Amino acid sequence: VIIFMKSIEWLNNSIRFLDQTELPLNEVYIDTSDISILADAIRTLKVRGAPLLGIASAYGLLLGTQKEIQSSKEQFIRAFEDSDALLASTRPTAKNLFWALERMRNILRLNSKEDSTTLFDRLKSEALSIHEEDRVMCDKIGAHGADLIPMDAVILTHCNTGALATGGIGTAFGVILTAHNSGKNISVFADETRPLLQGARLTMWELQKAGIPATLITDNSAAWTIKTKKVGLIIAGADRIAADGDTANKIGTFNLAVLAKEHNIPFYIAAPSSTIDFSIQSGEQIQIEERGFGEVLNGFGKQIAPNNISVFNPAFDVTPHHLITAIITEKGILRAPYGNSIASMVKQ
Amino acid sequence: VIIFMKSIEWLNNSIRFLDQTELPLNEVYIDTSDISILADAIRTLKVRGAPLLGIASAYGLLLGTQKEIQSSKEQFIRAFEDSDALLASTRPTAKNLFWALERMRNILRLNSKEDSTTLFDRLKSEALSIHEEDRVMCDKIGAHGADLIPMDAVILTHCNTGALATGGIGTAFGVILTAHNSGKNISVFADETRPLLQGARLTMWELQKAGIPATLITDNSAAWTIKTKKVGLIIAGADRIAADGDTANKIGTFNLAVLAKEHNIPFYIAAPSSTIDFSIQSGEQIQIEERGFGEVLNGFGKQIAPNNISVFNPAFDVTPHHLITAIITEKGILRAPYGNSIASMVKQ
Repeated sequence: VIIFMKSIEWLNNSIRFLDQTELPLNEVYIDTSDISILADAIRTLKVRGAPLLGIASAYGLLLGTQKEIQSSKEQFIRAFEDSDALLASTRPTAKNLFWALERMRNILRLNSKEDSTTLFDRLKSEALSIHEEDRVMCDKIGAHGADLIPMDAVILTHCNTGALATGGIGTAFGVILTAHNSGKNISVFADETRPLLQGARLTMWELQKAGIPATLITDNSAAWTIKTKKVGLIIAGADRIAADGDTANKIGTFNLAVLAKEHNIPFYIAAPSSTIDFSIQSGEQIQIEERGFGEVLNGFGKQIAPNNISVFNPAFDVTPHHLITAIITEKGILRAPYGNSIASMVKQ
Repeated sequence: VIIFMKSIEWLNNSIRFLDQTELPLNEVYIDTSDISILADAIRTLKVRGAPLLGIASAYGLLLGTQKEIQSSKEQFIRAFEDSDALLASTRPTAKNLFWALERMRNILRLNSKEDSTTLFDRLKSEALSIHEEDRVMCDKIGAHGADLIPMDAVILTHCNTGALATGGIGTAFGVILTAHNSGKNISVFADETRPLLQGARLTMWELQKAGIPATLITDNSAAWTIKTKKVGLIIAGADRIAADGDTANKIGTFNLAVLAKEHNIPFYIAAPSSTIDFSIQSGEQIQIEERGFGEVLNGFGKQIAPNNISVFNPAFDVTPHHLITAIITEKGILRAPYGNSIASMVKQ
């Protein structure tokens, strides 16, 4: 699979990242060897997307320590700890960021007797592995998922699940891209995904960049689009999957799953197996974050509703497993009954 | 039923109208006896909403002719014709506007032998009737519909169907208002209704103004809101109803009807019986207007997607009659099989 765009890259002593706040109108890459510029980019959402934050923070530790390779080991370790603290302060609720920092700390611990040069090499190797593992995982999800896509397919997708959010081709987006690259005749409808418009801003940009025929719709046009444009399947990502297959994902996913059922078309979720949370038996136990009203009221520029009103702004919804045709992971395709298929996957 | 707000009013020699382009942030009323100011207000959408345009254009003819009451009858009739032409040029596709102008022309024809003073009185009486008939029709829809609303109800509604669009309390909005005013414990979720955000801008304003507890949601939050906020029914208006009950209405209505079915809650349409088009056998024959991409891309300030993309922007969708629990009209409540109930209503 060809990666058409890298949202972050290690360039031997520096990184290059795409400034996502300039999208969709400008494609601006920033080269830097300064960890404070990267930390600021993470804080201001120039770099975003859960897997990408993990990769970026691992690279950040390389930027923060590389100048101390020739210094004392004490200074090297102090630089690591300072960098770690700086990166951890950028997005305190980003799990992947902390997961990657922890992997890097572990390398530091395991190699505590090595000199700074060797230590840095081991850290660099781990950071590149974190990136590479994500890239490979995306490729596998793409390959498994592409088997489900017919030779001619009109696909509806939601939110942003592509190269902008991951270290590879993405999850749901990766499935679409893999099918397209394998020569299938694919066209895509992307819904705008209110309130933050990731579908309009990011997915439409990625589809255009990849040369996949694509059309933007408002979220509320989905039913009419499915019916009149002969949409053949819907595919979305996942933020968290319960042990029974109930899936939390960006608000609006549940709507689409209901519309898929009404129109008798498949509804697929594509996500890494690490998204499955075995501590959660069913969707009812998933806590859904509610966000502020400003995203809804002022997201487009002008204020769109009166002052002093109530706004309900859930960031995610939970799609019941009975509405999900299959869950596509890097380990293979899971189908109902999900309790069994998810449990068997773990035993592999 | 108390009308809480008049979007247009005849004030003996002048009109007062609400400048809807100032909503939702400012409530600005304009008093004028100058037909050119009214014509400009219609052209620039300060006055909008199908039934309201009919009322406004009838009042416009009064403004345009009242200065010629003391002049020759020839001058009076010329003033009528000039006013008619001016108003007809404002919104050339607004059916209600032409329907009202035609009613006024008919009065002119029927009273061609009367003097200018009498002619003007007859025209004024017709204009006030056009307004009053719409007000009464809204009240009747409200009263019939309120019978369907339980004592405690969480209601989801779509787009704008209230006093801003009509000469009275509105259609779907009128049902909600009537139930609220009768002492029922009503709370409302209004979806924002992309792309033009009539739900956010107009319905939330009307709900706030009427003192009805209300919460704004994005369109794609509907399924999650229905499930977690215990929405008990959905009600929307209609632009055109086929003889079999299939209903064209603002884009997003079809989505909501599917979600109502999935959650086993009623889905109601409220509309004047004149919305039923007997020349159309089923929804498949309804032509759906597609509008430009600018509404989606640039509607509210910032451009939200890349340049040179495709956008599918249908203004309406068609909800199949099997998803509609009942159609509420001023003549009563229609239920499936709609072919029969609609035909019997006409015979009344």
